Amino acid sequence: MTTFIYRRSLRIQWADCDPAGIVFNPRFFEFFDSNTWLMFEAALGVPAAKINATFGLVGLALVGAQANFMKPAAFGDTVELASQIGEFRRSSFDVEHRLTKGDDVLVEGRETRVWAVCHNDDPERIATAPIPADVVAKFG
Amino acid sequence: MTTFIYRRSLRIQWADCDPAGIVFNPRFFEFFDSNTWLMFEAALGVPAAKINATFGLVGLALVGAQANFMKPAAFGDTVELASQIGEFRRSSFDVEHRLTKGDDVLVEGRETRVWAVCHNDDPERIATAPIPADVVAKFG
Amino acid sequence: MTTFIYRRSLRIQWADCDPAGIVFNPRFFEFFDSNTWLMFEAALGVPAAKINATFGLVGLALVGAQANFMKPAAFGDTVELASQIGEFRRSSFDVEHRLTKGDDVLVEGRETRVWAVCHNDDPERIATAPIPADVVAKFG
Amino acid sequence: MTTFIYRRSLRIQWADCDPAGIVFNPRFFEFFDSNTWLMFEAALGVPAAKINATFGLVGLALVGAQANFMKPAAFGDTVELASQIGEFRRSSFDVEHRLTKGDDVLVEGRETRVWAVCHNDDPERIATAPIPADVVAKFG
Repeated sequence: MTTFIYRRSLRIQWADCDPAGIVFNPRFFEFFDSNTWLMFEAALGVPAAKINATFGLVGLALVGAQANFMKPAAFGDTVELASQIGEFRRSSFDVEHRLTKGDDVLVEGRETRVWAVCHNDDPERIATAPIPADVVAKFG
Repeated sequence: MTTFIYRRSLRIQWADCDPAGIVFNPRFFEFFDSNTWLMFEAALGVPAAKINATFGLVGLALVGAQANFMKPAAFGDTVELASQIGEFRRSSFDVEHRLTKGDDVLVEGRETRVWAVCHNDDPERIATAPIPADVVAKFG
Repeated sequence: MTTFIYRRSLRIQWADCDPAGIVFNPRFFEFFDSNTWLMFEAALGVPAAKINATFGLVGLALVGAQANFMKPAAFGDTVELASQIGEFRRSSFDVEHRLTKGDDVLVEGRETRVWAVCHNDDPERIATAPIPADVVAKFG
Repeated sequence: MTTFIYRRSLRIQWADCDPAGIVFNPRFFEFFDSNTWLMFEAALGVPAAKINATFGLVGLALVGAQANFMKPAAFGDTVELASQIGEFRRSSFDVEHRLTKGDDVLVEGRETRVWAVCHNDDPERIATAPIPADVVAKFG
């Protein structure tokens, strides 16, 4: 069984870069977030903006994020961001991100997210719920 | 009658700057937006996050924004952003923003916003409503 | 003679949106900036990151920006940003931007930029220079 | 010997928040970056924008960043970001960040940075250098 990998080509914009002329690190976390939404859209066949409503979610709430910055990405670079599920647990999961430029790995990152729903007793609070088996299955 | 002017001192961060080492223009529009919220909070005496609920607003919807960039602001600069109402009309108003560094005017901007409420017939749509007289009065 | 128009399709990301669920206005100015770089790259046949060096520029310095926000763009929307030169003057020019979603115009914007070079007497200062005729010619 | 801790009070702005109405995670990494600069400025007594030049640095190059998001920060919240050196090694160091709202810890983060200088043989490349003992001493 193959793992679902979502790949997106990105052009590094002036807007992404800092006074050192390279991508400012928070932008990589933006790229990760966008890829996670687009990966779910592609894997589930549900438009990103309808994922929460379709699955009764408050969101795919982020509880952890990390990245290692091995080589810089610079204005004008064309890079690829490949994202895949690292692990599905009962109600949480990891997304692994890998940003490459040609054969060079520039950044490796990971997000940990939870399948977040409204709390039964208090709609203001968030609870976690088991990730549906058919969602997990879509990622191979 | 004096005009209410909201003044905020800002330190220019690395995060605000582009590869030219100066503030990237969209950041100025962020500064404007923050100052508009903080100005309303200060003038109305209502916390920014409660303004919409307090006045039955969908928001102070932005319909226009503009800026002239006279001199650059650079990493580390301490600047002041002074904001005031340019004009209140029936259901729209202008906010004028002026960013200075000492005696130098670096940026002048203006936002045009509308007093936006839910449409009676369709909660998905937005309608404009007259700005309450007591709101206008608070700005002098 | 036809005008050069640069068109880019954009997917609105979660990262672009504010608590109202729509694109936060500074992001549109980011989109404009990226399109201006990409339009020059396409028109001149010079990679964006090499434009300054190729033409001896400090940059295409932004001196003014404005936008009218007619309809919101929301998370997940696919929009098109079409950009073209509004006018070339001796050493400055306007770029006109138009963001559409299908037949709807969502945002219209304009940037005013100057052809900025190093000052002869002081490399710390910026001067304007005439825009080369062959640059102008490339835009039709 | 006490550890140097840099504390900054932050007001969460509309600009910091996403469609869920809470701070979008990349913003926390921006907050971290700003605090690191401001902490060095305060500890070393050198303006942030002059740190690189003063110490012959290319920069305090970020090689890793991570955060755990325990509770959300929302529009209008007043929070405190406390930052300190976690560890100085020969040419790299960790900065630990802790974002609190009253008694609640909302976010814990860590940056790993290197003392980056120009490579002797090739000014385009970066090399690491030992962190000067007097710099380390300033952090207690």
